[in-house]
This record gives sequence, C-alpha cells and structure tokens, in this order.
Amino acid sequence: MKDLGYYNGRYAPISEMTVPMNDRSSWFGDGVYDATYCRNHKIYMLDAHIDRFFSSASQLDIKIPYTKAELAALLSELVLKVDSPEQFVYWQITRADEGKNRSHDYDPALIPGNLWVTLTPRPIHNPYDRIKVITLADTRFLHCNIKTLNLIPSVMATRKAVAAGCYEAVLHRDGRVTECAHSNVSIIKDGVFRTAPTDNLILPGIARANLIRFCGQLGIPVDETPFTLDEMMNADEIIVSSSGSFALGVYEIDGKRVGGKAPQLLRQLQDTALRDFELATNV
Amino acid sequence: MKDLGYYNGRYAPISEMTVPMNDRSSWFGDGVYDATYCRNHKIYMLDAHIDRFFSSASQLDIKIPYTKAELAALLSELVLKVDSPEQFVYWQITRADEGKNRSHDYDPALIPGNLWVTLTPRPIHNPYDRIKVITLADTRFLHCNIKTLNLIPSVMATRKAVAAGCYEAVLHRDGRVTECAHSNVSIIKDGVFRTAPTDNLILPGIARANLIRFCGQLGIPVDETPFTLDEMMNADEIIVSSSGSFALGVYEIDGKRVGGKAPQLLRQLQDTALRDFELATNV
Repeated sequence: MKDLGYYNGRYAPISEMTVPMNDRSSWFGDGVYDATYCRNHKIYMLDAHIDRFFSSASQLDIKIPYTKAELAALLSELVLKVDSPEQFVYWQITRADEGKNRSHDYDPALIPGNLWVTLTPRPIHNPYDRIKVITLADTRFLHCNIKTLNLIPSVMATRKAVAAGCYEAVLHRDGRVTECAHSNVSIIKDGVFRTAPTDNLILPGIARANLIRFCGQLGIPVDETPFTLDEMMNADEIIVSSSGSFALGVYEIDGKRVGGKAPQLLRQLQDTALRDFELATNV
Repeated sequence: MKDLGYYNGRYAPISEMTVPMNDRSSWFGDGVYDATYCRNHKIYMLDAHIDRFFSSASQLDIKIPYTKAELAALLSELVLKVDSPEQFVYWQITRADEGKNRSHDYDPALIPGNLWVTLTPRPIHNPYDRIKVITLADTRFLHCNIKTLNLIPSVMATRKAVAAGCYEAVLHRDGRVTECAHSNVSIIKDGVFRTAPTDNLILPGIARANLIRFCGQLGIPVDETPFTLDEMMNADEIIVSSSGSFALGVYEIDGKRVGGKAPQLLRQLQDTALRDFELATNV
C-alpha cells in the first residue's frame, strides 16, 4: 500500500484509519513516540530508537505491551507492506483511558498502552543541504528529554521558522542554546565538536549520539558543555541534526551569515553519517 | 443516552466513538479545549467558557468553523441528549492535518479545525469540602494561559497528588506560586483576597474570575499580585478553585496544617458561588 496506519493490531492506509475517541492522546497528548527512516525497507538504527522509546514510556509510567524484540519485529514486518522502500517510520504509545473518563489521574496499575504506527513514503533530507534558521526563546516544558506528544511549542516554532523562509528554529533559554524545534543543534569551533549535554532541556537525539560516535572515528574532540547564542553566532560551523537530516550545515541565522569556516570537518561528518546510513540499510 | 461523544457532526456513546487517526491531536496534542458543568441540562457560564475557547484557539491559529452563538446552541442541544441533568461538559478543537502528514508545520491558510465534544454524567464537587494538597515545582511550558491539550505535566502532578492522598498539587516556579495541576489557587490574608495575575504562567480561570466578582459583591478587597510559597503557608485561608469545585478550602499542604483562620470569609465566597451556580442553572 501507499502508506500505512496501525493501531493495536488493525492497519489500513492512514487516511482510512480510525482510532477510539477515548484514548488519552485525545485529551492530554498523553503518550510518547519515536521515529526514524528506512531505506530498502530496512529501518535505520531501530534498536537505538526502540531503547529511547521504552525509556520515554517508562518515564511517564506508560506500559508498552511488547518486548523490545517484539516491537522491532512488528515494525520490520509492517514496513514491508508499504510500496516505497524509503519511509518515515513513526510509532507511538498512548495511555489507555479505561474507566477514567478523562480524569487527569491515571491508573498506577499500568494497564497496557495503545500502540500506533504510521509509515509514510519519504526519503531522508539531502544531507549536504545548507540551511537557514531563526532563533526563538525556548518556551517548552522542562521534560524535553522525554519524546512526548506534547509538541505545541515545537509546532509554533516550526511555523515561525517556515514563515521566515527557514528550515528550523534554534531555541534558547536564558542565553543557553538548547536545541531546535525538531532537531538537535551543535557547533564546531577551533576543531572541537560542541553539543549541549543531555539534561532535561534537550532530547537525547540519536543523530546527535551518532555524530559523537563519528567524531570518535574521525579523531574530532567532543565537548558536551552548553553553548550560548553568541558562541553559536561565532562558531566555525553550526550543525542541525535529526534522524532524517544527519548533519545539516547552517549558513544564516536570523538573516546574518554564519559558519562556513570548517567545511572539511563538516563534510567529513556528513560523509560518515551518510555512509553509516547506507551501509546499515543496504540490501 | 448515558454519555455522549461528538466529532464533526457524528455522535454516539463515548466508548463507541471513533475519530480519524490523522487528526493533529494524535501527533502533537495540537488543539485547545474548554469545559464546564451543567445542572438541569443548563450549562453554567457557557458564554465565558466559549469566549475563552475562542481566545485559546486564536492564539494557536486554529480556526473554529462556528460562530460563538452556533457553538453555544450546539452544546446546549447536545446536553439534552444525555439522561443525567448534571454533566461535565467538555469540548475541544484540534488542528486538521489535511495533506501535511504529521509535519510540525501547519497550513497558515487556517483550514477549519475538528470539533470534539464529550458529555459525562458528573455533579459538581461538594463546594464545602476541605482538601489536602502537595506542592511541586512547576515544570510546564510558558503558554499556560492557553487551554491546550498539552497536559502531560498536569497529568504527572495529579498522579503525585493522588498518590499522596491529596486533591491537588500546587505548582510553583522560582518561589512564586502559579496555580494547581487543574485548578487555580488563591489565598486570603488579613481580609484581602489575593490571587496571581493572569499572565502566561496561569490559566485565566473562570472560577477565579467569578471569585473576584463575588469579592466585589461582598466588599472583599482583591490583590492580583503573585504570592510565594511562604505567603501561602502563612495565609489565613488557601482556596483552590475550578469550574467544578468553586472555592475549596485547603487544610493541609505537604502534611502541614494550614489555613482555617478566616472561615467566615471562605464560607461567604462558597455560599455566593453555589448560589450563583444554582440560580444560573435553575429550571
């Protein structure tokens, strides 16, 4: 089929799928998700994404009624049902409402959550694209380490970025750069790869972790201390990373020309990221 | 019927209702809601709740495909279909996904949102109940003035409150008391009713606005400046207000006995609130 929506065992094209009204995603956005890409119907970094997914769910007391291996097998089987070999592979678990009737409180006995999957034909972003971004105050909650469905501030920030002709919005809190609306952000300065630590203000991005791993392979020192807006503006390169875009170089922030001073290092990271993706998803 | 779920014109008992998977509430909690109670099948403070609903939607660029009068008429008609004369009347508007396929960005042309309603048999809380609460750091986003579906922090705080045998969690940010997980909080000190101003850190509660109105009727001075945790602990009365519970007096915070030093003033407010509710919902 062209795309696929799955909910607790049922599946159909996304536009035909319905779900029960009384799922707590409806009332509270009460769920967590994860997502990655597949190529040749093979899902990239699936185990790492499933590990993070279980961690997110556990932090919200949401019970996933599958083992990690069962979920990996299910997703790997579902992607074969979609025609396109290149897909955006998305899944989420939401808290069941059973008997609670939209009470804020939930059952501490941890009844099994509802599993959703959507598979959409979509290739990765051109990993060598150079992008423009804007900066915005980070108005999100203090649980950004959990990949939840409470994404309105990211939606609002993305709209502002797109309206400004930009790819992303870099968020900052009290002068510290945190991350972007739906990506992490890192910098290269004087040959060092610098990226914010994984505290409660940023998502522990798997593309970010990959970049740290690639830096290790390439002999690039890594510094996991937060950086400021000023440090970003004066960096040699600014890198926006996500599962679908690896390590995009930023050439303009808020209309000012930035980066472009360490193109070889950036290119090495991009080449390594693309090779890793291609090797892992070869037939 | 016993209860009612409504979505874009269709309705059925809540447990039988389904909704399209591809509604942006599913992926982003991308919607806003409002809620109140009815008695004798008459909805209390409906116009004020609808005004706030339109304001919430407007702040997120979500288009409500009804006038305020049309929505009021629809809700007033739907409550007649539910047997119980006392109901929790809940409605929300969510951003349609049309063609966006779970892109964070939304269509700035403002396509009509999806309207949901749920009606559940439920009387108001006993307005003279005395309650216990806990205090927690306020970890929510900085858009608390908008009544959105991004409610995970409120869910988590409520669970902690209930686990501690309490009715609510009072949230605080940098020492300032903001509000509760699903109520506002105010204090009485030296004959003055004090409540935080309606900035982006609290919801402009309609029960809160009512209490200010009742203070005017009763000659009680009102001070809308923020108060601290210490000021709350030392207040003469601590009042937790919501559309279903008017003005509950708090007798214990984090296990410490509090309030109870201005019972007549509290009782006057509760009597006035209950009379206002009953008069407005008489047959």
